[in-house]
Amino acid sequence: MRAKDQTENLSISTGPLPGSVKIYVPGEMYDIKVAMRRIDLSPTIDENGVKRENESVVVYDTSGPYTDPEYTTNLHKGLPKLRQAWIEAREDTERLDQLSSEYGRIRRADTSLDHLRFEHIEDHPLVAAEGKCVTQLAYARAGIITPEMEYVAIRENQLCNQIKENYKKEKGEAFGAHLPELITPEFVRSEIAAGRAILPANINHPECEPMIIGRNFLVKINANIGNSPVTSSIQEEVEKAVWATRWGADTIMDLSTGRNIHETREWIVRNSPVPVGTVPLYQALEKVKGKVEELTWEIYKDTLIEQAEQGVDYFTIHAGLRWEFIPLTMNRLTGIVSRGGAIMASWCTTHKRESFLYEHFEEICEILARYDVAVSIGDGLRPGSIADANDEAQFAELRTLGELASIADKHNVQVIIEGPGHVPMHKIKENMDLQLSLCNEAPFYTLGPLVTDIAPGYDHITSAIGATLIGWYGTSMLCYVTRKEHLGLPNRDDVKEGVITYKLAAHAADLAKGHPAAYFRDFAMSKARYEFRWRDQFHLALDSETALKFHDETLPSEGHKTAHFCSMCGEHFCSMRASKKLHNRIKSEE
Amino acid sequence: MRAKDQTENLSISTGPLPGSVKIYVPGEMYDIKVAMRRIDLSPTIDENGVKRENESVVVYDTSGPYTDPEYTTNLHKGLPKLRQAWIEAREDTERLDQLSSEYGRIRRADTSLDHLRFEHIEDHPLVAAEGKCVTQLAYARAGIITPEMEYVAIRENQLCNQIKENYKKEKGEAFGAHLPELITPEFVRSEIAAGRAILPANINHPECEPMIIGRNFLVKINANIGNSPVTSSIQEEVEKAVWATRWGADTIMDLSTGRNIHETREWIVRNSPVPVGTVPLYQALEKVKGKVEELTWEIYKDTLIEQAEQGVDYFTIHAGLRWEFIPLTMNRLTGIVSRGGAIMASWCTTHKRESFLYEHFEEICEILARYDVAVSIGDGLRPGSIADANDEAQFAELRTLGELASIADKHNVQVIIEGPGHVPMHKIKENMDLQLSLCNEAPFYTLGPLVTDIAPGYDHITSAIGATLIGWYGTSMLCYVTRKEHLGLPNRDDVKEGVITYKLAAHAADLAKGHPAAYFRDFAMSKARYEFRWRDQFHLALDSETALKFHDETLPSEGHKTAHFCSMCGEHFCSMRASKKLHNRIKSEE
Repeated sequence: MRAKDQTENLSISTGPLPGSVKIYVPGEMYDIKVAMRRIDLSPTIDENGVKRENESVVVYDTSGPYTDPEYTTNLHKGLPKLRQAWIEAREDTERLDQLSSEYGRIRRADTSLDHLRFEHIEDHPLVAAEGKCVTQLAYARAGIITPEMEYVAIRENQLCNQIKENYKKEKGEAFGAHLPELITPEFVRSEIAAGRAILPANINHPECEPMIIGRNFLVKINANIGNSPVTSSIQEEVEKAVWATRWGADTIMDLSTGRNIHETREWIVRNSPVPVGTVPLYQALEKVKGKVEELTWEIYKDTLIEQAEQGVDYFTIHAGLRWEFIPLTMNRLTGIVSRGGAIMASWCTTHKRESFLYEHFEEICEILARYDVAVSIGDGLRPGSIADANDEAQFAELRTLGELASIADKHNVQVIIEGPGHVPMHKIKENMDLQLSLCNEAPFYTLGPLVTDIAPGYDHITSAIGATLIGWYGTSMLCYVTRKEHLGLPNRDDVKEGVITYKLAAHAADLAKGHPAAYFRDFAMSKARYEFRWRDQFHLALDSETALKFHDETLPSEGHKTAHFCSMCGEHFCSMRASKKLHNRIKSEE
Repeated sequence: MRAKDQTENLSISTGPLPGSVKIYVPGEMYDIKVAMRRIDLSPTIDENGVKRENESVVVYDTSGPYTDPEYTTNLHKGLPKLRQAWIEAREDTERLDQLSSEYGRIRRADTSLDHLRFEHIEDHPLVAAEGKCVTQLAYARAGIITPEMEYVAIRENQLCNQIKENYKKEKGEAFGAHLPELITPEFVRSEIAAGRAILPANINHPECEPMIIGRNFLVKINANIGNSPVTSSIQEEVEKAVWATRWGADTIMDLSTGRNIHETREWIVRNSPVPVGTVPLYQALEKVKGKVEELTWEIYKDTLIEQAEQGVDYFTIHAGLRWEFIPLTMNRLTGIVSRGGAIMASWCTTHKRESFLYEHFEEICEILARYDVAVSIGDGLRPGSIADANDEAQFAELRTLGELASIADKHNVQVIIEGPGHVPMHKIKENMDLQLSLCNEAPFYTLGPLVTDIAPGYDHITSAIGATLIGWYGTSMLCYVTRKEHLGLPNRDDVKEGVITYKLAAHAADLAKGHPAAYFRDFAMSKARYEFRWRDQFHLALDSETALKFHDETLPSEGHKTAHFCSMCGEHFCSMRASKKLHNRIKSEE
């Protein structure tokens, strides 16, 4: 369903995915309801016409309340505040009298922006009470299992312990990752406490459904959205955010760089059921009208606070690009291809001094801890071409990222590490192995990597190949790349295609790692395929709409939804049809 | 250019690809001209306005004469017979008085088919003269370097020994493959003689430009075309064949199963600049109106001869599926998913006897040797789902494929081995390692494999991930999968997308294996990218048209073809722009 919201400008896709039912699984420790998607299947009808039921398949659901038919969407009001009571019950936060950020207050007071503004804005955001640490990491280390942690444990299991079907699982090859058969709340806590996983959950983003990023859990994906100065509007970006989660984005990053990004972000955060990440440096640069030399720690710091109080769940901070590393990039083929990296390198060179992000990293962590914003330490020197992969600039920075990870850890700030980029296949594993050893197993979060430079227009694929490999090797979250990468701003269709492409990459990595829940969906899909239950195949597909559309291009009639062939081979050359008939014959002769 | 042919029904895309020039590199041993594509680039203009030329990039060209502007396409006449003189000069063939195949003669005599028939049909095909062996393998073993072998050596090198640019190459990780810096005709001969590579070149397909399939050469890709009974026509299939080679298909397989496949094949072979493969069993089955039980060795044998005399370069023959293996498939989730495999399993079960393909394999090889048709021994028991990967049925057959490969080898028949299918990532390498050891390093030719079952509509991607991995591990040719796999017959756009997807997979594998010529194109692309030479980027892309189209969706004006940004990030947030400015500044201050 593509529903019009109450106002004329906002319209998003809502309602359940085809063949799917929203279910809520209750907690045991806490009064929580964990959202999942159940795909109900039609029965198997054997050669004698006997029906046997097929077990429903429960899958991980990132789409939030939008796919619940009982829920009335109102983008102007925002999502229900799922975590509000949990946060309040901890009694370790307090409400601010006013926004702490000067810029935030100025924007709030500017009535000329009223027409852009989210209506139900919170003027009194939460902050940690004096002497309290409100991060999930601090709780985990104190031995506390939070409702968020129980939510995550239930969510990761996808009810796989209730499956009755005797399907084939694989042990896989997990390269040192340890995937338990069943994830317990205590396991979640211990992984967070060890710094091997993060649970991004800003206390000012209570709308967010808890999720976890770590290599002993399901591989996650991120979708980047955000307008660029050249094109797109607030409406489009909110729509893209909700759209990305509908198809499976585990987190979204708002990389907006145009005007009004403060207001755009408010809309996105209030309506996002998944953690929202940003790169605060982009907005800081907007504040000095793009003049890098005018950037200051004070402006940056105010931006961190501004965004933390809006509810951003994680910040990419390019603090590892040190002044002394810049000469290492001079002989590169493609220089510095990270936006944040290029900005900071330019700042260091202009001021002939160390990066203020590096120098103030302890203070940054103190700020982040107050709101439980996680830090994603950016790889400003990631390679932008096959020729620059795994060079000294990249690895010098990676060593620094490891040092910074220890600092964040000391402040109980949850930390993940960003990775490349463009890397030929034989050099991918070195990235993973070095990251694990240099960063004390903090979760790795990579952009692809792209395994060749020569396929612009297809970089969702060149990058998904590298992403699947590095996901298998141990990367915890894969940042999608759309087919417009290197060419232009992705539109709605590109976002969906990028998300689906990365979902299949993450799932393939889960299979190879031997994730116990991952095999059931493949089993159910292939069983439906072999039994020509076409509708079930579409419903079990990562993109049911496209599968149905492609099938119907040649055989649109309802009768063909149960036909024992498709147009690829035709009735008399369908191998599955022939194989099924043969097997039935052999069985009947036995 | 999309040129109308002289008649109303046939229309194909011809003319050079954007920014490209057709060149011909002369041989040293023979009077041959090896076709390649040269992409000419615009100069680099530095910060002071000084121009420096950029070296052209020469790339492998599968498109045949169609992209030569000097060539006048006439599909009714077929392509020039490039190899005719070479074949005749060997004086080891003779022309038949009439077609040897009874079916071929009947079709030829049927005037009701005249309107479908290729006009300039050859009624006197070539066959090996008595006592002669005309296969490239026999020549190679006799120490003879043929013009085909010299052609291949020059073609594989892509003039990379003439590159003046000091670009970065990688040694890579080739898993036991040995890629020489420069490929010599003697190296080609020795690899063919060792059975590690094949040069498919039926003496009745003189239009074919020689190419090689082997793991010490560039990774190749195959595109499947062919009508199904449900849809498509001769015209469409000829168009798809030429279209697939335009975008990079190294071979095409005609998998037609409808009526008139004899006539369709004639059109395709006469107009194909690349080797054509078929599965003769499909046509044999058509001859008995789809009644598997009526298949006989005699009908099959006549089909082999019929197609060999038309010029088919390689046959997929599912001779390794033995009667005794069928029970091994009974507990599979998806049974037998190879069409040929399902047909043969059904035949064995009906007749309660061993496969006639297995029993007559020696005789099959004798026939193939007479025309130099290569055999691609089919994997009738490949897994059709993640659950069935690497099972006993699959590997029992693989051991038999190894035995059959030895028989083909004994008859001087060039042989490749087909592989899966659906395989989770952690089980892919076992396939490659077993194939190499069981089949004496005969080239491996795989279909994907798909690394998950749950993404119908995106199986070009799920399969390209597995294909890139197995190509890296040592597979010589990757059979493409389109996004319509499991759903319907691919159309022209799907074919192109499948080809480009597999080109990027093969290229990524070449990079990882350390192929010396592979790095230059990535280098040139990334240099153009960093210098904002947009036109050069489009021209260097595997799909220049799509790259241009995506760029122009948001910034269509001519001025933006030299702009130092695109709509993805906009002018002030383009990292490459910022990095370039920074590097120029640092250099000027030094």
